[in-house]
Amino acid sequence: MFLTRSEYDRGVNTFSPEGRLFQVEYAIEAIKLGSTAIAVRTDEGVVMAVEKRVTSPLLEPSSIEKVAEIDEHIGVAMSGLTADARTLIDHGRVETQQHRFTYNEPMPLESVTQSLCDLALRFGEDDNDEGGMSRPFGVALLVAGWDAEGGPVLFHTDPSGTYVKYDAKAIGSGSEGAQTALQESYRKDMTLKEAEVLALSTLKQVMEEKVTATNVDIARVAPKWHLYTPEEVEEVITRL
Amino acid sequence: MFLTRSEYDRGVNTFSPEGRLFQVEYAIEAIKLGSTAIAVRTDEGVVMAVEKRVTSPLLEPSSIEKVAEIDEHIGVAMSGLTADARTLIDHGRVETQQHRFTYNEPMPLESVTQSLCDLALRFGEDDNDEGGMSRPFGVALLVAGWDAEGGPVLFHTDPSGTYVKYDAKAIGSGSEGAQTALQESYRKDMTLKEAEVLALSTLKQVMEEKVTATNVDIARVAPKWHLYTPEEVEEVITRL
Amino acid sequence: MFLTRSEYDRGVNTFSPEGRLFQVEYAIEAIKLGSTAIAVRTDEGVVMAVEKRVTSPLLEPSSIEKVAEIDEHIGVAMSGLTADARTLIDHGRVETQQHRFTYNEPMPLESVTQSLCDLALRFGEDDNDEGGMSRPFGVALLVAGWDAEGGPVLFHTDPSGTYVKYDAKAIGSGSEGAQTALQESYRKDMTLKEAEVLALSTLKQVMEEKVTATNVDIARVAPKWHLYTPEEVEEVITRL
Amino acid sequence: MFLTRSEYDRGVNTFSPEGRLFQVEYAIEAIKLGSTAIAVRTDEGVVMAVEKRVTSPLLEPSSIEKVAEIDEHIGVAMSGLTADARTLIDHGRVETQQHRFTYNEPMPLESVTQSLCDLALRFGEDDNDEGGMSRPFGVALLVAGWDAEGGPVLFHTDPSGTYVKYDAKAIGSGSEGAQTALQESYRKDMTLKEAEVLALSTLKQVMEEKVTATNVDIARVAPKWHLYTPEEVEEVITRL
Amino acid sequence: MFLTRSEYDRGVNTFSPEGRLFQVEYAIEAIKLGSTAIAVRTDEGVVMAVEKRVTSPLLEPSSIEKVAEIDEHIGVAMSGLTADARTLIDHGRVETQQHRFTYNEPMPLESVTQSLCDLALRFGEDDNDEGGMSRPFGVALLVAGWDAEGGPVLFHTDPSGTYVKYDAKAIGSGSEGAQTALQESYRKDMTLKEAEVLALSTLKQVMEEKVTATNVDIARVAPKWHLYTPEEVEEVITRL
Amino acid sequence: MFLTRSEYDRGVNTFSPEGRLFQVEYAIEAIKLGSTAIAVRTDEGVVMAVEKRVTSPLLEPSSIEKVAEIDEHIGVAMSGLTADARTLIDHGRVETQQHRFTYNEPMPLESVTQSLCDLALRFGEDDNDEGGMSRPFGVALLVAGWDAEGGPVLFHTDPSGTYVKYDAKAIGSGSEGAQTALQESYRKDMTLKEAEVLALSTLKQVMEEKVTATNVDIARVAPKWHLYTPEEVEEVITRL
Amino acid sequence: MFLTRSEYDRGVNTFSPEGRLFQVEYAIEAIKLGSTAIAVRTDEGVVMAVEKRVTSPLLEPSSIEKVAEIDEHIGVAMSGLTADARTLIDHGRVETQQHRFTYNEPMPLESVTQSLCDLALRFGEDDNDEGGMSRPFGVALLVAGWDAEGGPVLFHTDPSGTYVKYDAKAIGSGSEGAQTALQESYRKDMTLKEAEVLALSTLKQVMEEKVTATNVDIARVAPKWHLYTPEEVEEVITRL
Repeated sequence: MFLTRSEYDRGVNTFSPEGRLFQVEYAIEAIKLGSTAIAVRTDEGVVMAVEKRVTSPLLEPSSIEKVAEIDEHIGVAMSGLTADARTLIDHGRVETQQHRFTYNEPMPLESVTQSLCDLALRFGEDDNDEGGMSRPFGVALLVAGWDAEGGPVLFHTDPSGTYVKYDAKAIGSGSEGAQTALQESYRKDMTLKEAEVLALSTLKQVMEEKVTATNVDIARVAPKWHLYTPEEVEEVITRL
Repeated sequence: MFLTRSEYDRGVNTFSPEGRLFQVEYAIEAIKLGSTAIAVRTDEGVVMAVEKRVTSPLLEPSSIEKVAEIDEHIGVAMSGLTADARTLIDHGRVETQQHRFTYNEPMPLESVTQSLCDLALRFGEDDNDEGGMSRPFGVALLVAGWDAEGGPVLFHTDPSGTYVKYDAKAIGSGSEGAQTALQESYRKDMTLKEAEVLALSTLKQVMEEKVTATNVDIARVAPKWHLYTPEEVEEVITRL
Repeated sequence: MFLTRSEYDRGVNTFSPEGRLFQVEYAIEAIKLGSTAIAVRTDEGVVMAVEKRVTSPLLEPSSIEKVAEIDEHIGVAMSGLTADARTLIDHGRVETQQHRFTYNEPMPLESVTQSLCDLALRFGEDDNDEGGMSRPFGVALLVAGWDAEGGPVLFHTDPSGTYVKYDAKAIGSGSEGAQTALQESYRKDMTLKEAEVLALSTLKQVMEEKVTATNVDIARVAPKWHLYTPEEVEEVITRL
Repeated sequence: MFLTRSEYDRGVNTFSPEGRLFQVEYAIEAIKLGSTAIAVRTDEGVVMAVEKRVTSPLLEPSSIEKVAEIDEHIGVAMSGLTADARTLIDHGRVETQQHRFTYNEPMPLESVTQSLCDLALRFGEDDNDEGGMSRPFGVALLVAGWDAEGGPVLFHTDPSGTYVKYDAKAIGSGSEGAQTALQESYRKDMTLKEAEVLALSTLKQVMEEKVTATNVDIARVAPKWHLYTPEEVEEVITRL
Repeated sequence: MFLTRSEYDRGVNTFSPEGRLFQVEYAIEAIKLGSTAIAVRTDEGVVMAVEKRVTSPLLEPSSIEKVAEIDEHIGVAMSGLTADARTLIDHGRVETQQHRFTYNEPMPLESVTQSLCDLALRFGEDDNDEGGMSRPFGVALLVAGWDAEGGPVLFHTDPSGTYVKYDAKAIGSGSEGAQTALQESYRKDMTLKEAEVLALSTLKQVMEEKVTATNVDIARVAPKWHLYTPEEVEEVITRL
Repeated sequence: MFLTRSEYDRGVNTFSPEGRLFQVEYAIEAIKLGSTAIAVRTDEGVVMAVEKRVTSPLLEPSSIEKVAEIDEHIGVAMSGLTADARTLIDHGRVETQQHRFTYNEPMPLESVTQSLCDLALRFGEDDNDEGGMSRPFGVALLVAGWDAEGGPVLFHTDPSGTYVKYDAKAIGSGSEGAQTALQESYRKDMTLKEAEVLALSTLKQVMEEKVTATNVDIARVAPKWHLYTPEEVEEVITRL
Repeated sequence: MFLTRSEYDRGVNTFSPEGRLFQVEYAIEAIKLGSTAIAVRTDEGVVMAVEKRVTSPLLEPSSIEKVAEIDEHIGVAMSGLTADARTLIDHGRVETQQHRFTYNEPMPLESVTQSLCDLALRFGEDDNDEGGMSRPFGVALLVAGWDAEGGPVLFHTDPSGTYVKYDAKAIGSGSEGAQTALQESYRKDMTLKEAEVLALSTLKQVMEEKVTATNVDIARVAPKWHLYTPEEVEEVITRL
């Protein structure tokens, strides 16, 4: 008597009889197709390690950006549709600069994250004047930052516009295995150096290829954003 | 001769032959998938207890917000789509601040609640300039407050834009069992302390996990909004 | 060769081959699911009695509003979707206040009623700037008032935007039985007190539960709007 | 190979392979469900007689308006959706008053009729700023008037926006039988009194109920609009 | 493998795989349902004869307008949807008057015709500010005029927005037979009187009813627009 | 598993799984239904010969315009939907005049052609303020001109908004055979007189009827636009 | 139970259950139908070689533009829908000129590329005021340039709005074979002259026709844009 599940899943903003929004759930699927990204929070700062899929030896690996700076105290690692992520990142950069200009202080981490999620939630609306979309954003973000009050913080956002804080979190195609590994090894009292090893070794477990300075990026916010040079990545690899 | 029920249920604002609006009913289903929230009204104030689904040990429980302050005399507990709730809460915060600015007094509870329901009712309209949506809001709220005239008040709102007053009310996945339990134990002359125990013990009955200071939040409006610290939650747990 | 009836019924504003507008007819069905409301006109004023569905003992009955004041000389009883009714009532309140402000006199009853029906008729249009809707309003109203010229008046409106005058009228789920009962017992020369008894006894016949001061509301316009207190309702119940 | 007729009939403004506009034809069907209205033109003026469906003895017959004044020299009888007719009538009243204001003379009959038909033709367009609709108007009008130059005139309009002059015309559910009766009995040299009898006796033939001063309305433009009082209607009935 | 022809024919502006626009072709079908109209060009002027379908003896034949003046040197005969034709005619009248006002000379015939066709071509566009439509115009016109430079001219327009010059042309339900008859009998050196007879006798062949001064209209532009009086029509009939 | 080709072909701007835009391809089909047009470029200028389908002996051949002047140094021959071509031609005339007004020089040929193609590409967009369409233009153009710098130039445009230069090009229903014939006989060092013969003899091969001064038009840009008189056309015919 | 893949692929911006956007993937297919283009980066500059499909000997090869200058330090090679590429190129030209005007320096390469991708990403949105489209752009670009800071750079963009840097990249129908060939022969220390040979010899392998100065174009940015003359192309061919 009821239509099958799939009859409800094309309207971008329509509830199914069970109260589900399928287009948002399918956007979450897009993230499961993406490269894996891992972030680990310590008291000294947040470390992020991401996989880069270098599909051709002629491709310049440094041009694949899976981590990005939002402001000097905030950065993100992403998984899913890269172009969608760019829209969110640009939005975040404008918001944080406006905050600095208006209040002369870095924007609090939760305000940035909420602003990104508010944009994600607005898909399907007409007044898309700030980068809003006609479909859900097909991207998940790990938002890492150093809050003026709270110190190092790690947020996870998904296409439904929901965000929560994590101590360590993995997203993307290898996220299931990686999250289990993180749960087993994470300790609240880790040093930043230990977190680098945890993030990269966890990433190594779920990547099909060998980890090199070419196919991973590492970045930290501690307390400023820093993208590791190939040499610094190599140094972490040797420590594994 | 008639199409089956499900043929009418995808138009966001279309009546079925029996005069039903299925998209609104499906939004109500979304709430039945949500975490349970309970509110109890006494003459000393209103107490709310909510379940938090901590899906990972690495997740920071305090970042799951299932209760929120609207104004110092009003707070809400929510169940359903968190991101939708945030839109309603932001709307409520703006309305209450504007009221204070214009009239120099706290906004009456029913005005706040009606304002939230008016927004909920406007889905599917074009002039979505205040957070209106292209689908019904998939969230139910328990609006607790201390009215300048009426004292402690508890309202329940649902996606159809309807609101009514309750002495005690449960929403979310465990609401059926919880409401029955509330009916059996609620007394109009309860103290606030008794209400804390009633709310939390009822929540405990319908939660799958053990109740801890981590996976529940308690808040009260008596007569000001207060979110219980983990220690205060522990103290209520020991009283159970 | 022809499609069955139901193929025409989802376009909100499309004629079927027989010249019918099904979405309007389905909205009328929504009213048949609503609580029963009854109004009786006498030369001394109009009396309205409405059923309130108190679904839980913890629900505060006074927060279920099935009768509402529009202006001091006009009130309505409603059946159907409560939230839709609120939109119409708000519209009526604004219209009547603007009339008083502009002409310094109460707004004539038929003007108010026509204004409500004009709003109801506009669904599906773009210029929804006064509360217009993308579907028909799923609500019927009994508009009771005291006209400066005509004295006590009772109008009935339905989702098609049609209105007619009645001496006595029932709407909602029990309207069929109630209307028959009204026809048998109504007399033009009734007193207001007799009308109170007629309205409430008729309501009693079609309600499943026992009539109490909790689950019915009584109001009158004679010549001013007055909502009966629980004591006044009790007094009418005893006279039955 | 071709789709059946009914596949083309839901687009409000789409031609079928035979060059037909089905939604307009279905709107004409809506009129065949309406109450019967009859108009007869004589050199002394135009008489209109309409059936009123008094569905309940508690309904006030005078509030069923099936004839209406547009200006003091123009009136209409209607059949079909009453609420649609009201939109047309309001439009006509504004047009005629503007004409008087601008030119200081009564508006010619054909100009009024064309203005009503232009509005009817505009359905489905965006710039609905004067009461235009998203579907055809489901109403037919008999426009009776006294032209400054041409004397008594009777026009008939239908949902396609077409209008023609008639000596005598019937619309509504009984129109087929009534039109035949009119053709048999109408004479160009009738007096107004004879026309009253012709209109009412023709209406009587097609009405299921007995004709009374309650369930018919009679109006004339000769040369001013006049709605007959119940006594005047009774007087015509006795002359039958 | 291909869908049948009819799958493409409901989009108002969609090509079929063969490169056809079916809605325009269906609009042309609407004209084949219309009354027959004939125009004949001579060096003395253009004569038009049209059939009027007098469906009832009580209908006033003069109110059926199948020929109309645009300006004193231009007139049209029409077939198809009368209300659509009225929109085109009003457009033409405004255009010709504006031309006279701006240039102080009659508007050239081809400019008028092109202006009518441009309007016809714009259907389906948003900026319908000059009478544009959401579907093709279901009407064909014979545009007859006396050009300041070229003398008598006859254009034929159809719903596709195409126009060409003719010496003699028939449109409407009887157009096929009539066009053949015109081809056989038309001579370039005809007098206006001979053209009157040719037009009316051709019309007579394709009409089901006997030709009378009541059911045909004759008009000419020679060099001014003139609609024949019933006596003048009778005179032509006697010459047949 | 895949839908057949035809499921993708009704969305005016939707890719099929093979990356094709069917509505554009179907528009190209519309051109294959059109009359044949041929253009030949020589160093002395560009000659165009077009077929005119004179469907009735009463039709005035000179009113069928298949070649048109854009500016005194540019002209086009067209095939496909005549009314669509008129929109493009009007656009080109405005552009070239604006260029002359702004820069006081004739507009370069490629700029004109690109401007026509930009308009063709914009179908399906909202901001149709310069003649844009809700479907592709169903017309191909041969744009012939004399460039201030490059001398004689011939461009071919199609509904996809693509343009390329040709020495000689045929479009329309007979284009396949004609293009082959042109390839065999075209020489870069032809005189204009030889090109006239080549164009007309090629057209003759693919026309069903005998070539006469009535059913073909010839035009040249050498270096000014000139439409051949019937006598000039006859003269070319005798040279065949 | 699930619909097949193809049910999701017509909504321009709808996720399939696996999180894929089919319309974007189909646009990528459009590129596989396009002509092949190859670009090779050396320290002396970037060389691009493109295939031109000269479908007729009468077609002027120089009018087929598959490479284009954006600014004097940037050029693109394209494959896919030529008209779509023109929109992107025009957008790039405006952006680079505005940058020069505002900052008095050439625009950085990545900024140009991101600007082109942002435009590509905006399809399906309403505010298409800068050339945005109602479908994805069916074109891939190789963006070659000389960056003020980074020297020679090569970017590849696709319809999803993604861009990455390459040392050497092939796009279009022959891209698979060509990319393999490039990987085998590319060396980072190539001279520009060697790169010319590599690009052209690779193109030769995947073209069906013999390579001539007519059916290929070569261009370089080293450090200025230069489109090779036929003689220069011949010279490279002889070096193969």
